[in-house]
Amino acid sequence: MSDHKWVYGFGGGTADGDASLKNLLGGKGANLAEMSSLGLPVPPGFTLSTEVCTKYTQNQRTYPHEVTAQVKFALRAVETHAGKRFGDADNPLLVSVRSGGRASMPGMMDTVLNLGLNSETVEGLAALSGDRRFAFDSYRRFIQMYSDVVLGVDHDLFEEILDEHKDVSGIQLDVELDADDWQKIVVQYLALVEEELGTPFPSNPVDQLWGAIGAVFDSWMNERAKVYRALHDIPVNWGTAVNVQAMVFGNMGPRSATGVAFTRNPSTGERAYYGEFLINAQGEDVVAGIRTPQALTQAAREEMGDTLPSMEEALPVVFAQLTQVFDQLETHYCDMQDIEFTVERDKLWMLQTRSGKRTAKASLKIAVEMVHEGLISQHDAVLRIEPAALDQLLHPTLAAGHTCPILATGLPASPGAATGQVVFSADEAVLLAGRGQSVILVRLETSPDDIHGMHAAGGIVTARGGMTSHAAVVARGMGRPCVCGIGDLLIDEAAKQFTVGGQIVREGDTITIDGSKGHVLAGAAQMEQPELTGEFGTLMGWADAARRMKIRTNAETPQDVQTAKDFGAEGIGLCRTEHMFFGEARIAAMREMILAATKTGRTKALAKILPMQTEDFTEIFRIMGELPCTIRLLDPPLHEFLPHAPEDVRLVAIATGMTVDKLMARAAALVETNPMLGHRGCRLGISYPEIYEMQTRAIFQAQANVKAETGVTANVEIMIPLAATAKELEILKSKISAVAATIEAAQGFAPTYLFGAMIELPRAALCAGELAEFSSFFSFGTNDLTQTTFGLSRDDASSFLHTYMSQGVFEKDPFVSIDESGVGQLIAIATKRSRAARPDVKLGICGEHGGDPASIDFCEAQGLDYVSCSPFRVPIARLAAAQAAMRRNHETA
Amino acid sequence: MSDHKWVYGFGGGTADGDASLKNLLGGKGANLAEMSSLGLPVPPGFTLSTEVCTKYTQNQRTYPHEVTAQVKFALRAVETHAGKRFGDADNPLLVSVRSGGRASMPGMMDTVLNLGLNSETVEGLAALSGDRRFAFDSYRRFIQMYSDVVLGVDHDLFEEILDEHKDVSGIQLDVELDADDWQKIVVQYLALVEEELGTPFPSNPVDQLWGAIGAVFDSWMNERAKVYRALHDIPVNWGTAVNVQAMVFGNMGPRSATGVAFTRNPSTGERAYYGEFLINAQGEDVVAGIRTPQALTQAAREEMGDTLPSMEEALPVVFAQLTQVFDQLETHYCDMQDIEFTVERDKLWMLQTRSGKRTAKASLKIAVEMVHEGLISQHDAVLRIEPAALDQLLHPTLAAGHTCPILATGLPASPGAATGQVVFSADEAVLLAGRGQSVILVRLETSPDDIHGMHAAGGIVTARGGMTSHAAVVARGMGRPCVCGIGDLLIDEAAKQFTVGGQIVREGDTITIDGSKGHVLAGAAQMEQPELTGEFGTLMGWADAARRMKIRTNAETPQDVQTAKDFGAEGIGLCRTEHMFFGEARIAAMREMILAATKTGRTKALAKILPMQTEDFTEIFRIMGELPCTIRLLDPPLHEFLPHAPEDVRLVAIATGMTVDKLMARAAALVETNPMLGHRGCRLGISYPEIYEMQTRAIFQAQANVKAETGVTANVEIMIPLAATAKELEILKSKISAVAATIEAAQGFAPTYLFGAMIELPRAALCAGELAEFSSFFSFGTNDLTQTTFGLSRDDASSFLHTYMSQGVFEKDPFVSIDESGVGQLIAIATKRSRAARPDVKLGICGEHGGDPASIDFCEAQGLDYVSCSPFRVPIARLAAAQAAMRRNHETA
Repeated sequence: MSDHKWVYGFGGGTADGDASLKNLLGGKGANLAEMSSLGLPVPPGFTLSTEVCTKYTQNQRTYPHEVTAQVKFALRAVETHAGKRFGDADNPLLVSVRSGGRASMPGMMDTVLNLGLNSETVEGLAALSGDRRFAFDSYRRFIQMYSDVVLGVDHDLFEEILDEHKDVSGIQLDVELDADDWQKIVVQYLALVEEELGTPFPSNPVDQLWGAIGAVFDSWMNERAKVYRALHDIPVNWGTAVNVQAMVFGNMGPRSATGVAFTRNPSTGERAYYGEFLINAQGEDVVAGIRTPQALTQAAREEMGDTLPSMEEALPVVFAQLTQVFDQLETHYCDMQDIEFTVERDKLWMLQTRSGKRTAKASLKIAVEMVHEGLISQHDAVLRIEPAALDQLLHPTLAAGHTCPILATGLPASPGAATGQVVFSADEAVLLAGRGQSVILVRLETSPDDIHGMHAAGGIVTARGGMTSHAAVVARGMGRPCVCGIGDLLIDEAAKQFTVGGQIVREGDTITIDGSKGHVLAGAAQMEQPELTGEFGTLMGWADAARRMKIRTNAETPQDVQTAKDFGAEGIGLCRTEHMFFGEARIAAMREMILAATKTGRTKALAKILPMQTEDFTEIFRIMGELPCTIRLLDPPLHEFLPHAPEDVRLVAIATGMTVDKLMARAAALVETNPMLGHRGCRLGISYPEIYEMQTRAIFQAQANVKAETGVTANVEIMIPLAATAKELEILKSKISAVAATIEAAQGFAPTYLFGAMIELPRAALCAGELAEFSSFFSFGTNDLTQTTFGLSRDDASSFLHTYMSQGVFEKDPFVSIDESGVGQLIAIATKRSRAARPDVKLGICGEHGGDPASIDFCEAQGLDYVSCSPFRVPIARLAAAQAAMRRNHETA
Repeated sequence: MSDHKWVYGFGGGTADGDASLKNLLGGKGANLAEMSSLGLPVPPGFTLSTEVCTKYTQNQRTYPHEVTAQVKFALRAVETHAGKRFGDADNPLLVSVRSGGRASMPGMMDTVLNLGLNSETVEGLAALSGDRRFAFDSYRRFIQMYSDVVLGVDHDLFEEILDEHKDVSGIQLDVELDADDWQKIVVQYLALVEEELGTPFPSNPVDQLWGAIGAVFDSWMNERAKVYRALHDIPVNWGTAVNVQAMVFGNMGPRSATGVAFTRNPSTGERAYYGEFLINAQGEDVVAGIRTPQALTQAAREEMGDTLPSMEEALPVVFAQLTQVFDQLETHYCDMQDIEFTVERDKLWMLQTRSGKRTAKASLKIAVEMVHEGLISQHDAVLRIEPAALDQLLHPTLAAGHTCPILATGLPASPGAATGQVVFSADEAVLLAGRGQSVILVRLETSPDDIHGMHAAGGIVTARGGMTSHAAVVARGMGRPCVCGIGDLLIDEAAKQFTVGGQIVREGDTITIDGSKGHVLAGAAQMEQPELTGEFGTLMGWADAARRMKIRTNAETPQDVQTAKDFGAEGIGLCRTEHMFFGEARIAAMREMILAATKTGRTKALAKILPMQTEDFTEIFRIMGELPCTIRLLDPPLHEFLPHAPEDVRLVAIATGMTVDKLMARAAALVETNPMLGHRGCRLGISYPEIYEMQTRAIFQAQANVKAETGVTANVEIMIPLAATAKELEILKSKISAVAATIEAAQGFAPTYLFGAMIELPRAALCAGELAEFSSFFSFGTNDLTQTTFGLSRDDASSFLHTYMSQGVFEKDPFVSIDESGVGQLIAIATKRSRAARPDVKLGICGEHGGDPASIDFCEAQGLDYVSCSPFRVPIARLAAAQAAMRRNHETA
C-alpha cells in the first residue's frame, strides 16, 4: 500500500488540510479544514480529494484501492469527535455528502443529507432528539433525496405519495403531519423504491455512504455541470472533491435555524452583515428559495419592512457568536466571506465559508474599503477585481427622469438595468437572443436547467426566491440585472403572460427592469451613462499606477472617440477609415470612384471625398490633442461599397450616369471567390495609389488645420493594412512621403507622422524583421491573423464552431481569446524579430482580442507597448493590463 | 581617384578579364577576353562592366567619375592593337558598341555599329578600303542606326529618303546604288536629323561613343527588356555590360562574309558543325533573318537542297581555320559553343562565343555524348540539363500514321508538334490563349515585340528567317515548336488569312505544325506519346543514382496513375478523392448525400458511392503494387458539388425528389463568404463522420480485394486535409481505427495503413510537433499554405498579380515557386518540430510546387523525404531532385 493520501479529516479543532489546499480539497473542504483549525465550531468530517475524482472518472468509475481504508479510518475519527457511531441503533451518527470543487458551481452538482438512517437508527435519532416526528421527517427526506440522486428514482413519484396521504388525511400543509404520518409515508417510500428498482432501498449505512460518494463524483460529468464549466472556463480535469460531514440539524424546533450570510453587502459592497435565515429549517430550504427567509439583522428587517423577527432579535446570543465568527473570518481571509451556518438547539455550527461572489460595484467598494481598513494592500485590491465584471458598471442605468410606470417591486437581486421583450422559457430566450433581440426572462423560479436562457437574456425576473436564491446568485455571477421574489406576480405559462397589480403583460411585450432597486417597469425606459468616479476612480488609479502597457481604442466617429477618451483611452489604436465612407453623401462618391474605369475618373470622385475625410480627421485630432492616433488606410475590398439590392443599383446607376447593365457588370467583375484573401488592404493602395494619396492628404490637411486652430500638432500614425512583404511598405512609404512633400511645398506646413503597418498575415509576422526596415510601428490585427493562421473564416465558422467546441477541438473560441499555441507563436516571432531589427519599434494589438483579459495578459507577457479595444472595453483593458503587469512583476521577482 | 576597375580591355592575344568574370563583364565580354587570351583572332576592344550599368541606373544616368579616364585609356590600347586611331581622318578606327549581360537576351537591347564615322573619317575609310561605295554605305548605316538607337529618330524616315532616292534615280535594289548615291543620301540623312532634333548629328567620334554607351545602358530598362527579364527570371540588378570593339567588315566584297555557327546541331544534338553565313554582309543581316543565309558545310547544303555554295566550298581556307577554332573552343569550354564570326577579305575574326542554346533533346544528346567523349563527367552532364526543358520531350509528337496533308515545308526551327487555331498577331494569340484555346501564331517574321504572343501560342510559323532568326532562337528557348522560313507563304494580315501552295488558310482554321520536320499540316493531326529511352534514359539513370528524395505523383485516375508510373513515379503523393465524385453516376449520389437533412439520409446516399470508391481504389492499388499511395480524404466544401445552372438544378431536383425551392435553399445555406477558409477538409470529416467512414471503408475494402487477387498488400497512407490542431487528428485517427477494426471483425482481414495529415495551414506548421503525436507522415500542401500565409486567394490574385510582379513586390509568382522567405520558414519550422517529436515522420510536398525545380531544390535543402507532382512533371522532378542533391553534396563537401 502506497502512502498517498486521498482522504483528509477535519473537526474537533484540528484538520489534515488547510485553505491553501483548495485545488486538492475543493473550496468547501479546504475552508472547513481551515475553520476547524481556527477553532471554529465545525461539525467533524472528511474530504475525498479532487484526485480521487480524476482517478474515478478515468478508471471506469473505480477508486484507487487505498481509498476504502482511508475513508474507514476518517469515519472513525468523525465518530470520535461527534461522540456518535455510524449505524449505531442507539447513538447514530448521520452525515451529509456534498460536492466541492476548486471553483464554485452553485446548484450544479448533487448532495445527500441525513445519510445513515434506516429502520433502526431512525429510532435512535428519535430517542436522542426526543422528537420522533423530526426523526421520521428526516428519514423520509433522506429516502427521497438518496433515491433521486443516487438511485435515479423520479422525485415526483415521492411527491405523489405525500400528496395522496395528505388528501386521504384531509391535511393541507406538511407541518400538520405528525410522527405517525411520516412513519407511514416512509413505509410507502421504501415500497416505491423496491417496486421501481426491483431491489430494496439500501439499509446498510456504509453502502449508503459509498452510493452517495459515487453519485456526487458522477455528477461532475452531468450535462448541467458541463454547460456551466463551458460558460465559466472551468477545465474538466479539475474534478470535484466530496465532503462527508456529521449532520447538524437546523430543523430541530424553534431554537434551531439555518442561514446564509455575507460579511458585507454583496450587491452594494456596504460594510454591513447581510443574510437570511429560516427558523426550524435545513440549509437547502434557504438556497432553494421555496420559503421566503427572514433578515439577519434588525436594521435590514426594518429597511425591508418585514414583520417576521430578524435573527438578531430572535436568537440574540447565537447572533452575537455569529458576528464574532464573521469578524474573525474576514480578518483571517482578508476578504468578504459567504457563510453557511446552522443553529441546532442554540448551538452554532459553521458549515461553509468562502470568498463571496459580488457585483462589480460591490467588488470595487469592498476592495477599496479593505485597503482603507488596512486589511489588504492596493496591489491585492487591484488583483481582486475581475476585469470583465467592470462591464456591468460601464453600461447605462435607468435615467433619473424616466417616465415608465412601475409594474411591480421585488428584491434587488442583481444590479443594473435592462430593457427587452418578455419571454417565459430559457429556450425562447436563447432563440430570440440569437436573432439579436434583447429579452427579459420571466420565471416562477429558476433552476440549473435555465442557465443557458439566463445567459442569453438581458435580465431576469422571478416570482419566488430571495437574495441568495438560484436566480439571484447566478444573475450576479453573470452580471445580468435581476429582480427576485415578486410575490404577487402570477405567471400563466400556457397563456404566455403574467399578471401583476391587475395588469397583464404578454410574451413579446417590452419591459424594463432595474436590478438595483428591484423594479419592473412597463415599456423601454430611458437610460443614462454610468458615473466612473468614487471607488471606481480610486481603484483604476491604483491599477493605472501598476500598469505598463498603454490602452488605446478602436474608434473613428467623434462620439466613440470621446467616449473612449472619457473611459481613459490613451490614444486611438485603430481608426478604420472605411467606416467613414458609409455616410449617404460619401457612399455616392465612393461608388463613383469604384465604378470609374480610369484613374482620372477615380481621382475626380476622390476629390469629392477629400474635404469630408479632412473634416473627419480634424474632429478626431481636436478631441485627441497630443495623444497618438493610428489611422489605418482603406482596407476592405471595393465590392463591399457597391449596392446589391436592385433598387439601390438603379439609384446608383442614375447617380453615376451608368447603365444598370454596365454597373452590374462592373460590380460582378469585382466579386471575389474569397474576398477575405482578395484585392484589399494595401493591395488596393498599390493598384490604385490615388486612394491612399487622397486619404493621406486628408490626414495631413487635418493636422495642419488643428495646428492652426489650437497650436497642438496631432500625433499621427499612418497604418498600412494587410501587408505581406517589405516591398509593399517600401512602395507605400515613398508615396506617402511624396504627399507630405507636396503639402509642405504648397503650404509651408511639414506634416509629422509615423509610418507603420498591421501584422495580420502569417507572412508579415514571419518576416517582421524585414518589414521593420520600413515600419516605425506594428499593430497586430489578431482577427485576420487568426483567420489566416487557422485558415478559418470568421463569417463561415458558425456552421461547425459548435461541433468544434463540444468535441474539444477548440477549448476557447479563438476569435474571442488569442490562440496562444498558434497565433501567439506568430506574435512572439514578430515581436522578437521586429525588435531585433528596430529596437524602438512600437508594438500593439488592435483586434477584438485587445479587450479580452486573457489576451491582454498574453500581450503583457510578450512585452507589447499597448493594446487597443472598443471604447466600452477600455476600463476592462486598463485593469487587465495592470493585473497582467503585476503578475509578471511577481513572477520576475 | 580610387583604384576601382570599371573598364576591361582585350585584344592582341591578351586581356584584363577572362571567362570566369561573366557576372562582371557579361557573357560576351568575358568570352571575348577569354578568346583573346587563347590567342584567337579577336578584334581589340574593351568592356564597361555591369557595375557601371548599376551605378549609371542608380545615379540618374551618370557614371562613376573614374570611368571617363579608364575608357580613354582602354581606347588608346585598342588603337595600338588595331594600328588605327579613333577620329583620325587618314587611318580611322571604327568601333561597335554592344550590350552583353550575364544572361543572353537576344534582340532585346541596342547595338550601334560603324561608330567613329563623320565627313572626314569616311574619306579615310574609303581610301583605306579602296571602296568608296562601301565607306559611304557604312556611313549611312551608322547614321541611321545611331539616330534610331541613340537619338530616337524614327527608322522609317530614313527608309523614306532611301526609297525616294531610288524612285527618282529609277533604281530598284540597294546594290545598284553607287558611292555617289550613298553620299547624296548621307547628306539628306544628316539634314533629316538636324531638322528632327534641331541640332546637328554629332560629328565628334568621342561624343558619338558616349552617346552610344549611354543608349545601350538605357536599353537595359526598356519595356522589351523588362518583359524578357520577367519571363526568364533575370533580376534587374544584374545589369548589362557594354562592349566597345574595333569594327571588322564582313561586307567588304566577295571575300568577306559574316556568320553564326554552333559546334554541334542545337536542334538534334548531332555532332556536326552547324550554321549559316552570308557573303558580303554585316553580322546583323544574319540574325535579323532578312536575307536567307547559306549553309556552313557542304553536307548541310546538300541535305537542304540549297543551290548557293556552302562556306566550306566558297571560302575553304577560312572554313578550315574556323573548324579548328570550333574544336579548340569546345575542348576549352567543354560545351557546345554558339559562335559569331566575320571574314574580312579572307581574314577570320571571332566576334563572340558562348554556350549555345539547344533543344531539350539536343541538350540530352550532347551531354551524354560529351560524357562518352570524356569531355565532361556524368555529374556535369546531369547538372547541365535544365529540368524544365524536359517538358519538351514529354509531350506528344505527330503519330506515324497521321493523315493530315502537308500544306507547306519550312525550316525545322524548334522541335515538337502542336495543333491550334491560326492567329496573325501576338495580341490575338494572348487573347485566345487566355480563353483556354490552343493557337498557332503565324507571322512574316517575329520581333521582340511579339514575345508575349509567342509565349501564349502553342507553336510558331514564320515566312522569313533562318535557323538562327529571332523566331527560331526564342521558340527553342521557350520550348515551342516552330517552323521558319517558309518562302512561299503569303500572309495577308488585313484579310486575316495566308496562302501557301494555292491553298487559303483563314484565321481560326486549325493547323498542326511539326517543328522537328519543318512541316505545316492542315487540320488537327493525331499525336503519339514520347519515347523516353536512349539518351533520355541514360541521363535519367545517372540522375536517379544521384537523387536522394523520392518522386511521387498527384493522380487519381487509373490513366494518370499509369502515365506517372511510366514516367518513373515512385508512389502517389496525393490522390484527391473528391475528383472521383464528379462522374455522372457519382455526382447524383454525392448531391443526394449533401442535400440529405439527416445522418440517415447521408448514410444511405454514401452507401451508393461506397462500391464505386472501392473500385477506384482497387484499380489504383493494382497499378501501384507495393508503392506507397497517399489518399487524401474529402477536402472541398460541399457546395462545390451542387448544381448551379438552372437546368442542372431542375434535373437534380427531379432526381432527389426535392422541390427546386428547397434545393435552392439548401444550396444557398451552404454558400460561404470565403469557401477557401470555410467548412471543408477535416472540418467536414468531424461534422459528418459518415463521409470519412465511407471513404476509409472503401480504401480498406480495396486493399483486401487486391490482396486477395494478387497477394500484394497495397501500401496505404490515409491523409487528413486542412488540419489545424492535434485534436482534429486525434478524433479522426480514432474513427479510422474503428473502421479498420470493423473490417477486421467482419472479414478477418486486418487493414494496414499509415495515418497522416496535410500541413497546409500556418497553425499546423507551427504546431507540427503536437500534430506529429498522431501523424506518421505529413505532406505540405503548399498551394493552400501559400494562400493562407500570404492571405492571398489564388482565384482572386489575378486582378493585381500583374501589378505586383511589375512593381517588384513579387519577384516570382508565389504559386509557381515556393516563397522561401515566408512559406519556406513555415516548412522549415514544421520539419524541425515534427522530426523532433517523431524522428521517423515521413515528410513530403504535394502542391503545384512539387514540380517546380526551384521549389524542389528548397525541399532538398529541408531534407524532405519526397516531392509529389503531376504525372507529366515527374521526370522534371526526378532531374531537379538529383541536381539539388548534387549541389547540396557539393556545398557540404
